[in-house]
Amino acid sequence: MDVSDIGALTFDVFGTVVDWRGSVVREGERLGAQKGFDVDWPSFADDWRNDGYTGGMERIRRGDLPWMKVDALHRLKLNQLLEEHGITGLTEAETDHFNRVWHRLTPWSDVLEGLERLSKGFVLASLSNGNMSLLTNMAKNAGIHWDCVLSAELSGHYKPDPEVYKAAADLLGFRTDQVLMVAAHKADLRGAQGAGLRTAYVPRPDEFGPEGQVDMAPDRSFDVSATDFIDLAAKLGV
Amino acid sequence: MDVSDIGALTFDVFGTVVDWRGSVVREGERLGAQKGFDVDWPSFADDWRNDGYTGGMERIRRGDLPWMKVDALHRLKLNQLLEEHGITGLTEAETDHFNRVWHRLTPWSDVLEGLERLSKGFVLASLSNGNMSLLTNMAKNAGIHWDCVLSAELSGHYKPDPEVYKAAADLLGFRTDQVLMVAAHKADLRGAQGAGLRTAYVPRPDEFGPEGQVDMAPDRSFDVSATDFIDLAAKLGV
Repeated sequence: MDVSDIGALTFDVFGTVVDWRGSVVREGERLGAQKGFDVDWPSFADDWRNDGYTGGMERIRRGDLPWMKVDALHRLKLNQLLEEHGITGLTEAETDHFNRVWHRLTPWSDVLEGLERLSKGFVLASLSNGNMSLLTNMAKNAGIHWDCVLSAELSGHYKPDPEVYKAAADLLGFRTDQVLMVAAHKADLRGAQGAGLRTAYVPRPDEFGPEGQVDMAPDRSFDVSATDFIDLAAKLGV
Repeated sequence: MDVSDIGALTFDVFGTVVDWRGSVVREGERLGAQKGFDVDWPSFADDWRNDGYTGGMERIRRGDLPWMKVDALHRLKLNQLLEEHGITGLTEAETDHFNRVWHRLTPWSDVLEGLERLSKGFVLASLSNGNMSLLTNMAKNAGIHWDCVLSAELSGHYKPDPEVYKAAADLLGFRTDQVLMVAAHKADLRGAQGAGLRTAYVPRPDEFGPEGQVDMAPDRSFDVSATDFIDLAAKLGV
């Protein structure tokens, strides 16, 4: 693609930058070992993500829940999951700490090197539905240097609502067509397209685990496709 | 001070982190030499700052101007200054580039080392009236790594309005009394105090140039006073 007019890259985070499932499973297993809980952590993680996070945002969009930060959505679902899995005896501090596992997700192996290269050519910003403090803490913990942490929280909407993408371009000081949205999820990229952004597709085949299904079919409506962030840097000429 | 409950430091930027006056004068002199303009650049910089920026925000607060980003306030005043100083013949691209000198301000000599140390103990965020893209570009250009770029722009108010400080604490995920506002300006710190934040005073005697007046009288109402960011790190135990 012709990148001469691109000023900033905005990144989806959960799944695209960090391996949420592997991270949650690892911390769950550690907690379970410490406390003697026998839990199917991959299923726990999937349910937390699918019903708590994705489902929670849908309920907000429908008006069944008031606006709340993703931290609060995660906590609502965590309370329910702990009960369902018969996990009792955690203190409030322990529960809060486990809820913040989403602040401690670890990046895919190509991310730090890829972002360092991309940073030489573009302004790099997160653009996640995760709240600002979640994204800030995660980046600090993982050694990710965003030029700017941006979140759906700043627009009071969740992706793929167009307000999120438009607010990001405005805050970064660019026209929407000067911003390239990077994501592993086609629905996110279609939302970005609808708001006038350019799009880069970076599929993450392992996001949902070894047996997870990921739609990796090529889609020529995206401006660029790359196998990871290092390949993306090469394709963008940096 | 007891810092055990402090989670984040928020920083005033113009004057506290970066030497706006020296930076604007240097770029002005370079532009003048290239183009053959004979201008009193220190006076130009002071007027741009005092009437364009500070005065502009006051006019917004009084309702004499609609809300606008600091980039737009800077440009309004720049247009006037160019006319007053008889500077003609700049293209729109050259004028826009010069207006963005505020995106390229250089930090005081202690800043990078001080922030690197402070970063080990706390979440570090800008909290300036400068708009998000101005702060993002400035940090990228100067090699400053904020964990999170925050601006008055996110609350639609300008410091010292309390909304700015409260929004910052909320976005960072802390109570206001877990956030320490760092500034060279007492009015900013009093605004932060009013919103419930803790305060650190770091005077910058050279902000207004060799003959500039800076109120450096000690004020024991601030939680900590430091001579620069390295001293601040030492005083906060990191």
